[in-house]
Amino acid sequence: MGAMQQAISSFTVPTRGKRLYEFTDEAARWIAGSGIGSGLLTLFCRHTSASLLITENAAPAVQRDLLAWLDRTVPEGAGFEHDDEGPDDMPAHIRSVLTGTSLQVPVESGRMLLGTWQGLFLAEHRAAPHERQVAAHLVGE
Amino acid sequence: MGAMQQAISSFTVPTRGKRLYEFTDEAARWIAGSGIGSGLLTLFCRHTSASLLITENAAPAVQRDLLAWLDRTVPEGAGFEHDDEGPDDMPAHIRSVLTGTSLQVPVESGRMLLGTWQGLFLAEHRAAPHERQVAAHLVGE
Amino acid sequence: MGAMQQAISSFTVPTRGKRLYEFTDEAARWIAGSGIGSGLLTLFCRHTSASLLITENAAPAVQRDLLAWLDRTVPEGAGFEHDDEGPDDMPAHIRSVLTGTSLQVPVESGRMLLGTWQGLFLAEHRAAPHERQVAAHLVGE
Repeated sequence: MGAMQQAISSFTVPTRGKRLYEFTDEAARWIAGSGIGSGLLTLFCRHTSASLLITENAAPAVQRDLLAWLDRTVPEGAGFEHDDEGPDDMPAHIRSVLTGTSLQVPVESGRMLLGTWQGLFLAEHRAAPHERQVAAHLVGE
Repeated sequence: MGAMQQAISSFTVPTRGKRLYEFTDEAARWIAGSGIGSGLLTLFCRHTSASLLITENAAPAVQRDLLAWLDRTVPEGAGFEHDDEGPDDMPAHIRSVLTGTSLQVPVESGRMLLGTWQGLFLAEHRAAPHERQVAAHLVGE
Repeated sequence: MGAMQQAISSFTVPTRGKRLYEFTDEAARWIAGSGIGSGLLTLFCRHTSASLLITENAAPAVQRDLLAWLDRTVPEGAGFEHDDEGPDDMPAHIRSVLTGTSLQVPVESGRMLLGTWQGLFLAEHRAAPHERQVAAHLVGE
């Protein structure tokens, strides 16, 4: 058993509209180069109108259905008081809270313990292009 | 203060239909045998159609009401594009994203710092039986 | 690089009705005094009718819109079976599950890596006053 250590980094996810953006491979590469073989990965979205989530990464229809459900359930034009930045402003905040700001994934033998179909996604809830920052923390040995 | 260390394990939760399955006791037993008395527990669901959540574990009606609300809010037969595995397929993915893939609980004196009524649950969102895998990570001293 | 260590503490958040209560500053002060300069902060709500979330902390209308959306989407008087403690009992449990029990924030140079507009909030989902307990864990060096 080695001594416990940690690594901290960040990813930039450029977004072009309301979609899911997978970054599983970037996270996997960072872990592989970190010198930490087993431990816990945490990813944190530094924004309140984008979020992080894990869902199926094989069928693109899953992502479309998820986004369509969010569109229906937290609709634009629902009479929100806060609309400083347009009709997608407040729905983006609510959708971010519902889907969450951070992810955790245990790591063993240098690999995330993801299930077969699990991918890591940044969910962009604003229509305009953004450069989203994801902070990453890995603790282990 | 002892040296920091970690432990990694996994639980199997057999499911028989759409319900909550409590696994608080299994987690508590694993912590008790880990040799780590204080730290942070993380639990991770390795699936995209089941999820992990913490809710009241005293009144069974709470679990029924929560599931009924999910049934109404993410209904089967809502015209989802993705239905490869039947009408409960896509609702299961959305319900999993809403309720979340991982849990974290601080640990002190060998026990999770749960509130009086808090229990750890795996939420099964598919009708068919499954063997669900939950990865567990504990860091502490 | 220093040796890894951890700190555990708790905050009390007194609540007076269904609102968001920001505790970003309390968390920041605790980190500053912990002796840990970089690492991972975890916050855990020890209740099933209050939750923790991160959202915009500049415009108060964001908080009102978020709460109003929760009121509409998980309405009181929706015929819940569980109402031992009144009409806000079961909606409080569901809203807590939706918005989440714990938060994680990476820490560097003694500060949380929050985005410009991100604040840490306890969401109170019950009408009556409560003293809410938030457990805090920090691992790092």
